[in-house]
Amino acid sequence: MNGAESLVRTLVQGGVDVCFTNPGTSEMHFVAALDRVEGMRCVLGLFEGVVTGAADGYYRMKRTPASTLLHLGPGLANGIANLHNAKKAASGIVNIVGQHATYHIDYNAPLTSDIEGLARPMSAWVRTSPDAKSVARDGAAAIAAAKGMPPQIATLILPADTAWNEADGIAEVPAEQQRPSYSPHAVEAAARALRSGEPTLLLLSGNALTEHGLALAQRIAGKSGCKVMAQTYNARMARGQGRYWVERVPYVVEAALPILKPFRHIVLVEAMDPVAFFAYPDKPSLLKPEGCDAHRLTDVGENSEAALEALAGALGAKAQDAQPQKLVDIAKPSGALTLDTIAQAIAVAIPENAIVIDESITTGRGFFPPTAAAAPHDWLQNLGGSIGFSPPVAVGAAVACPDRKVICMVGDGSAMYTLQALWTQARENLDVTTVVFANRKYQILRGEFDGVGAGEPGKRAQDMLTLDRPDLDWVSLAKGMGVPARAVTTADELNAALEAGVRGSGPSLVEVRM
Amino acid sequence: MNGAESLVRTLVQGGVDVCFTNPGTSEMHFVAALDRVEGMRCVLGLFEGVVTGAADGYYRMKRTPASTLLHLGPGLANGIANLHNAKKAASGIVNIVGQHATYHIDYNAPLTSDIEGLARPMSAWVRTSPDAKSVARDGAAAIAAAKGMPPQIATLILPADTAWNEADGIAEVPAEQQRPSYSPHAVEAAARALRSGEPTLLLLSGNALTEHGLALAQRIAGKSGCKVMAQTYNARMARGQGRYWVERVPYVVEAALPILKPFRHIVLVEAMDPVAFFAYPDKPSLLKPEGCDAHRLTDVGENSEAALEALAGALGAKAQDAQPQKLVDIAKPSGALTLDTIAQAIAVAIPENAIVIDESITTGRGFFPPTAAAAPHDWLQNLGGSIGFSPPVAVGAAVACPDRKVICMVGDGSAMYTLQALWTQARENLDVTTVVFANRKYQILRGEFDGVGAGEPGKRAQDMLTLDRPDLDWVSLAKGMGVPARAVTTADELNAALEAGVRGSGPSLVEVRM
Repeated sequence: MNGAESLVRTLVQGGVDVCFTNPGTSEMHFVAALDRVEGMRCVLGLFEGVVTGAADGYYRMKRTPASTLLHLGPGLANGIANLHNAKKAASGIVNIVGQHATYHIDYNAPLTSDIEGLARPMSAWVRTSPDAKSVARDGAAAIAAAKGMPPQIATLILPADTAWNEADGIAEVPAEQQRPSYSPHAVEAAARALRSGEPTLLLLSGNALTEHGLALAQRIAGKSGCKVMAQTYNARMARGQGRYWVERVPYVVEAALPILKPFRHIVLVEAMDPVAFFAYPDKPSLLKPEGCDAHRLTDVGENSEAALEALAGALGAKAQDAQPQKLVDIAKPSGALTLDTIAQAIAVAIPENAIVIDESITTGRGFFPPTAAAAPHDWLQNLGGSIGFSPPVAVGAAVACPDRKVICMVGDGSAMYTLQALWTQARENLDVTTVVFANRKYQILRGEFDGVGAGEPGKRAQDMLTLDRPDLDWVSLAKGMGVPARAVTTADELNAALEAGVRGSGPSLVEVRM
Repeated sequence: MNGAESLVRTLVQGGVDVCFTNPGTSEMHFVAALDRVEGMRCVLGLFEGVVTGAADGYYRMKRTPASTLLHLGPGLANGIANLHNAKKAASGIVNIVGQHATYHIDYNAPLTSDIEGLARPMSAWVRTSPDAKSVARDGAAAIAAAKGMPPQIATLILPADTAWNEADGIAEVPAEQQRPSYSPHAVEAAARALRSGEPTLLLLSGNALTEHGLALAQRIAGKSGCKVMAQTYNARMARGQGRYWVERVPYVVEAALPILKPFRHIVLVEAMDPVAFFAYPDKPSLLKPEGCDAHRLTDVGENSEAALEALAGALGAKAQDAQPQKLVDIAKPSGALTLDTIAQAIAVAIPENAIVIDESITTGRGFFPPTAAAAPHDWLQNLGGSIGFSPPVAVGAAVACPDRKVICMVGDGSAMYTLQALWTQARENLDVTTVVFANRKYQILRGEFDGVGAGEPGKRAQDMLTLDRPDLDWVSLAKGMGVPARAVTTADELNAALEAGVRGSGPSLVEVRM
C-alpha cells in the first residue's frame, strides 16, 4: 500500500468519505487510489473555488468534514477565497494540497511556491507530511483537527513521493474530543442581565439557530421580555412555518444603529459583538450603543443549545412562555418584477425541507420576512464576505443532502466568480435550482460609493460598478455548462420558472432580468 | 486631495497609466478618484484572476508595469494564481489591495484576513500604507520596486482611511536604477566553454529571446558550432519568418534527456538549469547529463542582449557567421482535425505582428516547428504552470498593443479557470481571437498518470481527468459573455474560422472540437 492509498483508506475509515477535487500531476497517486479503495465519493470541480466552497456547504449540512484535493500552491490559492468564507462559518474541512516530491522542491520548478505560507491565513492546522510512512497518521491528525471544537480548516500538504512510496497502512483517527459544553458562569451572567429589567438583546448565531435553539430563545423572550435577533450573516438557520423566526442585525450601519440603540445588555450566543461590515468615515465600527454591556453566553465550538436550555431553566422559562408570532402573508405575486414580488415568489416557491443558499446581496435584503412564512427550510449565508460563495456551497449542500431541494439565490456579480460550479451540478445531477438576480451591476457598490463619502460616481467610476456592455446572458452561460435555464422578466414568469425548478430534479437556472 | 487621489496621480505621473481592477467597498475612493484624474485607463475584470493575468500580459508587451486594484484578502487570493505565473515570468506589477480602515481591522469584520501573509509568497515587495500622507510615497516606492531589475510584483495594501483622509499631494518615483548590465567574467567563462571544442548548448530565455538576441545567438552558433535552444517555457519570444528559430527543451522528461545528453557545457542566458516540471519516480529532477557544467551568462534582470553581443565579440562571431535555416513548409490544411492539421492551420493564420499566447498544453506540443515559418510574431507562454493563464494575459496584451492582433490558444480545461476574461474582451472590444482546443479532458493528466507510475486509470480515476458528461459548449459560454463564437470540426472549418477571426477586429472565439 503506497502513501496515497494509506491516506484515502484513513480518510474513509475516519468518516471523511467525500472528496471535492481538482487534481494535477502531483496528486495522480491519490486519484489512482480511488480506483482501489471503496467508499470515497470523488466530485470534480473545474476550478478550485468550486472545490473549497463545496466542502464548506457539505460541512454545514452534514456537520462532518469532507476533504478537498488541490494542485500545489496555485491550486490552493484559487480555493482560498471560499476557504476564507468557510473559516468564518466555522466549517471543518480536511484540505489536502499536493506538493512536489520532497527532493524536487529545491529545484524551483515552475509550480514551486510557498504552500504553507499560502495555507496559514485560512487554516488553523497546517502540516507537510515528511514521508509516506507518516501520511496516514498526518491524515488522521488532520481529520481530528477538522472535527475539532470549534471545527477548523486543516491543511495537509502531500509531497508526491509521500504518495507513491510504500506506507505502513492506515491510521486511527484520535477519539473525538468530548462534547462541546458551555460555562455555567456565563449562563448566570446572562440570566442576571435578562432579569435586570433593563432592555436586553439575545443575539444568536451558529448552533443557536437550530429549530430547537430558536424555540428555546422564544421561551426566554416570552419569559424575560428580551428581544431576540440573529447576527447579520449565519452559517445555517432553521426557518419557515413552525419555527421561531427572528430578524437579523441589518448590514447597513444607519439601519443597525437605531435598532441596537435601546439595549443596555446584549447576550451573545456564538454571535460576534455587532460590528460594521466595513468602516465608513464618521460612522462607528462597533454598533452597540455606549453603555451597553456584552455578555458572552457561548463562543463558537461551545454547545449553544445546552446553554440556552440552562438559561431557560435559570429563568424558569417554559414552553408555554413562547409568544405566538405573526407571519407575513405570502401569495403568488403577479405583474412586474420588483424587490417585493421577487421576495413573494421565492417565499411561495420554497418547498418543504429545502436548503436555501442566500447570496442575493442587495436584491434579497427584503427576503427574510416573507420567507419566514414559507415551508420549513434551512437558510445558509456567507460569513466571510467573499463573493462567489453560493454556487459552490450549493454543490456541497446537494452532495450532503441528496433528498433535499437546494435553492441557490445569487447576484449576477457574485455568480460570475464561480460559475464553473454549474458544470459540477450538471455532472453530478445535483438537485439545485439557481436563481441569478441579473441587475447588471455590483449594485451593492452603488450604495457603498455614497456610504464611504465618495459622492456620486462619474462616468469612469460607474464603469467599474456595472456589468453591462455587454450584458451577461445567463441562459447561454448555463447552457454552455449543461444546465437548462430560462430568463424571466415578470413575476408570473418567475413563479412558473421556480415551480418548474422545484418540481424537477437535477440542476436548473433562472435568470431574473431586473 | 485625499490619499486615493494622491495615489492615482502618483501612478499616472510615474508612468503607470493602466489599472486592471475588481474593486469593492474599501476601494471606492480609489474608483472615485478616477473621475477626477485624467490619464488612467481602468479596465474591469469580473474575477480577480482576470485582473492579475491581464497585468502580466500588459507587462510582457509594454515592458512597464500596470497596476491592479483588488478587494481585501479574498480579492487578492483570487488573483494569486496568475500573480504566481507573473512572478515566474519576471513581470513587474503594482499590485494594489484594499484593506479595512486601520482602526477597523481589529474588530475582525467578515472580510478581515492576513493580507500581508497572503501577499508575501508571490510578492517581492509588500507594504501596508499607514496613513493618507504616506500613500503617495508608498505608491512611488511600489512603482520603483515593480520596475526594478529584475522586475517584481510590488503589493501595496491600502487601508480605506488612508484613501479617504487628506494627503499631502503626489510623490516622485525614485529615479530608475541604472540600466541592467552583465558580468564580463561570465562572458569570458561562456566564451571559454564555447571555444573548448566540447559539445555546448546555449540555452536562452527572457530578454535573450528578442529578435536581436536570437540573431546574436545565431551568429555565435555559426561561429562556435554550439547548439542553441530556448527554455521549455518563456515569457515572450520573437518568432516567425526572418527570425532565428530555436527549439525548446521538451516538457516530457524522456524527450528532454536524450536531447541534453550530448552536452559537456550549458551556457545559461537567463534560463534556469534545466529541471523537470514535476518529479517522477525513478526519473531525474535535473535534466543535464552527469559531468555537464552549467555556466551562467546572465540572470533575470541582467542585460542579455548586451551579454550576447559581448560574447559574440569575444568569439569573433559576425553577422555572416549566421547559418541559414530551413523552415517547415506550411500550407492551408484540409480534411480531418489532427494535431498536425491544427498546427498547420494556426501557422497559416498568424498575421504579421501578431501576439500569440500559448496555453495549448498537449494539443500544441507540435506547434513550434510550423509556426517558425509563420509571419513574424511574438509568442508568450506560461512559466508558472498555473492554468487559466492565457485568456487574462490576452486581455493585458491587447490593452498594451491595440494595433496588434492577439491569438489566444488554450485548452478547454485551462480556459474554464478564467473564462470571465471573455467578458472584459467584449467590453473593451479587444482584438483577441481565442482558440479553445476542446478535447474534453485534462489530456495532460492522462499522460502524467502513467508518468508517475500510477498505471492505467480506472473508472473513478478517469472521471477526475475528463471534462465530459456534460460536454462544455464554448459557443454558448462565449455568447453568454458577448463574444461571437463558432465551433469547428474539420481543418477547412478551422481555416475559415481563423481567417474570419484574424480579418475582423474585436474579440471572437473558435471552439476546436477534437
